[in-house]
Amino acid sequence: MTVIRDTIDRLLSRINAIGLDGEGWTRPSYSELESAAHDVVADEARALGLAVHRDAAGNLFARLPGRDRSAPAIHVGSHLDTVAQGGAYDGQAGVAGGLALIAALLAEGRVPPVDIVLTVTRAEESVWFPASYLGSRAALGRWSRADLQVRRSDTGRTLADHMRDLGLDPEAALQMPPPAPARFVEIHIEQGPVLHDAQESHAIVTGVRGGLRHRSARIHGVWAHSGGAPREGRADAVFALADLIHAMDADWAQMLAAGQDLAVTFGIVDAASPRHAMAKVPGEAGFCVDLRSDRTEALEAAHARLLHHVARIEAARPGIRFDLGAESRSTPVALSPVWQDALSRAAGGTLRAMPSGGGHDAAAFAAAGWDATMIFVRNWNGSHCPEEGMDPADLALAVGTLKRAVLAEDA
Amino acid sequence: MTVIRDTIDRLLSRINAIGLDGEGWTRPSYSELESAAHDVVADEARALGLAVHRDAAGNLFARLPGRDRSAPAIHVGSHLDTVAQGGAYDGQAGVAGGLALIAALLAEGRVPPVDIVLTVTRAEESVWFPASYLGSRAALGRWSRADLQVRRSDTGRTLADHMRDLGLDPEAALQMPPPAPARFVEIHIEQGPVLHDAQESHAIVTGVRGGLRHRSARIHGVWAHSGGAPREGRADAVFALADLIHAMDADWAQMLAAGQDLAVTFGIVDAASPRHAMAKVPGEAGFCVDLRSDRTEALEAAHARLLHHVARIEAARPGIRFDLGAESRSTPVALSPVWQDALSRAAGGTLRAMPSGGGHDAAAFAAAGWDATMIFVRNWNGSHCPEEGMDPADLALAVGTLKRAVLAEDA
Repeated sequence: MTVIRDTIDRLLSRINAIGLDGEGWTRPSYSELESAAHDVVADEARALGLAVHRDAAGNLFARLPGRDRSAPAIHVGSHLDTVAQGGAYDGQAGVAGGLALIAALLAEGRVPPVDIVLTVTRAEESVWFPASYLGSRAALGRWSRADLQVRRSDTGRTLADHMRDLGLDPEAALQMPPPAPARFVEIHIEQGPVLHDAQESHAIVTGVRGGLRHRSARIHGVWAHSGGAPREGRADAVFALADLIHAMDADWAQMLAAGQDLAVTFGIVDAASPRHAMAKVPGEAGFCVDLRSDRTEALEAAHARLLHHVARIEAARPGIRFDLGAESRSTPVALSPVWQDALSRAAGGTLRAMPSGGGHDAAAFAAAGWDATMIFVRNWNGSHCPEEGMDPADLALAVGTLKRAVLAEDA
Repeated sequence: MTVIRDTIDRLLSRINAIGLDGEGWTRPSYSELESAAHDVVADEARALGLAVHRDAAGNLFARLPGRDRSAPAIHVGSHLDTVAQGGAYDGQAGVAGGLALIAALLAEGRVPPVDIVLTVTRAEESVWFPASYLGSRAALGRWSRADLQVRRSDTGRTLADHMRDLGLDPEAALQMPPPAPARFVEIHIEQGPVLHDAQESHAIVTGVRGGLRHRSARIHGVWAHSGGAPREGRADAVFALADLIHAMDADWAQMLAAGQDLAVTFGIVDAASPRHAMAKVPGEAGFCVDLRSDRTEALEAAHARLLHHVARIEAARPGIRFDLGAESRSTPVALSPVWQDALSRAAGGTLRAMPSGGGHDAAAFAAAGWDATMIFVRNWNGSHCPEEGMDPADLALAVGTLKRAVLAEDA
């Protein structure tokens, strides 16, 4: 199907020509650059003869009519914003894949059983506005007034301000009613090494892991002279933190061995302020911890162990006090078993089914009652970085699987 | 002895009136401020009728003649530079105590058995010029040409340049011959909580701990997505570092239990660069480690354990690689058992004998073959900080002990 591959290559190339200067690709949420990337998709969709619609929040929809216009449509898409110095595929691949599906159906003269709606969301990367799935939630009629007041991390200005800059109407977006639940498919790079290591081109996603996070935890101890302070009497914040991390590492292995899904990451550890020095017992340390699982019970169990260790360490090390700060939670979301069956059949039963560690728009749609699924495409060199790698041929195979699943609904 | 207490109070007050604006006391090494503090001591010494001499490196000597002018003199003193935003006693206490000893002998009309030389060194705080005991080593004829080229951390200019600013002759300082070994006594705050906790005013120091340090070690791992990367396959630099710190904490307890003297401090831990993030498996971490002991064998044993753990962790965690960087060592120095006996007798056998964790000028004199000792004075609120606390009455008791020991030599 050269039309699938051609569409993918052309769209990725046109979208990735847009971004800030510097390493990798940078298109902030609700920026002119994100809008320009949406314009490329609108242009391509109109060239295929599709009707293009934008909602008040700036999400884009391009509709290919199906045979049954009254049945729930199949939305296919992803987002076009990126993290700072991100990669060429996170988000882009799903949009290119959605358009390629429609282009292939048109090229073959196949009318799909229901409407296919290419869906391009806004503001999926929460590094800019620290709130999850902003664009999707707007489209789903799920914004609260507080969402409009979230400030972009680089500019310090509110979401409402940035929307107005782009000619969007924040109040109108806030008033959008929830649409009737339909169907949603997001193709996305895996952002992990599983498919690459297994030499598999794509896979079905069973659910999106939830998270439980302390983003700005601190340990308070007592500053002292590294030569003068005896071991007894020290309240060393770094030793206390190492104790916690080491214990959570062991507990994580134990929970995995017991068959629970879990990931534990201490992404930032900071005992490197101007006050820290080689010859000082550290009296302070900062850290963040990110727990992820496909089951809320496992998140709570891991969190209980974290709290247990904090209490144990405070008791064992007089002078040490943890301040875990605010915790934020996102609920694990199960994706559609109906879609899973359909995609599996379309691929001849050969597709791996796996959870998604990262959060995705599909989770917002699933949480709103949509019949939602994801297809992961093999990638390498990590994600959210300029080195992020993907073979467009793998994406084309994923589109092929989706196309067969959609057309099989006619049978 | 009100003359002891009066001298202490007046000298501390006059010296501590000199310093940079801002929190605490700041008198950089080889600065006009350090020179001004020396001038106060010269003024006070001349007021007592002492002959004042400065060597080419700017160290100050004020001599009270003793009965036996040919016997090795007893040098008593410390330094007057401070760390940035340091305290009111680290260094100052020893100089004030030395002058108070001489003032008391004069007030009582006692001629000491040998010459007493108040000795005020330069550049003891190596945060300015990163080289140990610069002033003392100059006085001991132990400078190398490389010492003159050491650059001050704040100005970036060489020691030679800063000396010339103060009217000193670096070449002449470099040429000073080693003097015949004599005797050296340094009174200094403890910089630790031992005496404060034990409610003891002062103690005899048995030796100055040596150190073995890695000042800029790094761990290299693999960056990954915290949700997408499975546990197997991760190379998490923070988990690896926590493993090392936790293991060294346990080994430290074990070595102490086996009767070895040791302190283990990871004063800086840095996994907080712009690239680190809550949702990323950390691919890099920096740290420093400071091992201290009164025995070289214990330092080497602790270092061997560190290297053992590094190798173990690298083997257990594929993708993790430690780069410990340069190591710097200072040799533990034993202080005089003869002085220890004399001071102990002078105090009626009640004084604690303890090692010094921090480095001090006395170590340089001992290393040059001098009969050197230290007296620790109780302090609190740590050291090298504005809160550094000391009771001048404790310092007066220490001077009293020293005076009795000196006069007992007549017997």
